[in-house]
Amino acid sequence: MVHELGNTIALLARTPASLDALLRDLPETWTLRNEGDNSWSAFDVVGHLIHGELTDWMPRTRLILDFGDTRAFEPFDRMAQASQNTNKTLPELLDEFARLRAQNLNELRALNLQDDDLAKRGRHPALGVVTLSQLLATWAAHDLTHLHQISRVMAHQYRDFVGPWTAYLGVMHCDGHSS
Amino acid sequence: MVHELGNTIALLARTPASLDALLRDLPETWTLRNEGDNSWSAFDVVGHLIHGELTDWMPRTRLILDFGDTRAFEPFDRMAQASQNTNKTLPELLDEFARLRAQNLNELRALNLQDDDLAKRGRHPALGVVTLSQLLATWAAHDLTHLHQISRVMAHQYRDFVGPWTAYLGVMHCDGHSS
Repeated sequence: MVHELGNTIALLARTPASLDALLRDLPETWTLRNEGDNSWSAFDVVGHLIHGELTDWMPRTRLILDFGDTRAFEPFDRMAQASQNTNKTLPELLDEFARLRAQNLNELRALNLQDDDLAKRGRHPALGVVTLSQLLATWAAHDLTHLHQISRVMAHQYRDFVGPWTAYLGVMHCDGHSS
Repeated sequence: MVHELGNTIALLARTPASLDALLRDLPETWTLRNEGDNSWSAFDVVGHLIHGELTDWMPRTRLILDFGDTRAFEPFDRMAQASQNTNKTLPELLDEFARLRAQNLNELRALNLQDDDLAKRGRHPALGVVTLSQLLATWAAHDLTHLHQISRVMAHQYRDFVGPWTAYLGVMHCDGHSS
């Protein structure tokens, strides 16, 4: 199996609508609660996805295409959403995520990347040399890791309510490795 | 915190549209592949959710309301979808899931359950005494455990493509407890 960019774009294009269908106007017990301490709620995760659209995926793509591995990526601020979204509502964040994602995918498609582009190398500040193919595959997998996290954070709110069924619900046994 | 049925229904009502937005017409590399051996694909999970709509949640609700804990639930067949869906397409399964879920939620709302109904006791064949409240909370958490599973199964397909970013993607480290 090789990484096919069309499969990656197909998934990236669906995530905003899937999260919108799940989260918009859902009661706040599901969307604003977290797993305790400084963990993230579904609201926080959508904010984090927005920050990725603004500062991570396409800026890094352009850096690889323009400078290869001669310039390291800017480190990604995993906590940015905490300060940026305090006055926003979840529907506003869902709208913003959908708008930014569509814009980024338009830009990505317009690059018309070929196999030799995808093989180009960039430099991650901590991971070292990576390829453009790996960066774009990670963009899609990053959506999935946060869908995985959101489902876990939401299920956590029902931990006490399901009683003995906890034993059968795998999501209740996930140890938080997706945060 | 107490279990509020309105919150449960709000989530149950959104799952079909969320899965539809994520999975419909997505390339089969995402929807038909599993995690190896007899593990489940996203297609299999949707089939399992359909089977639950048909045989688990509302039949058990009616059993509790009619017979309390004097009759144990029918055991749930976790493998039924393997034989039932071989000739169906994923869009057909998504349509069927949405139709059955809407029908079941109409029936649930029509029951107009009150606190004393939710406190009624039923008997699970393996777990023993449970309440109607726990059954209905589990219906919602069961959606989330399978959303958690689907995101993990899909991410697995990109395990080799993300290269060193595997280290940062929690979903790649989930040990499959949700299957």
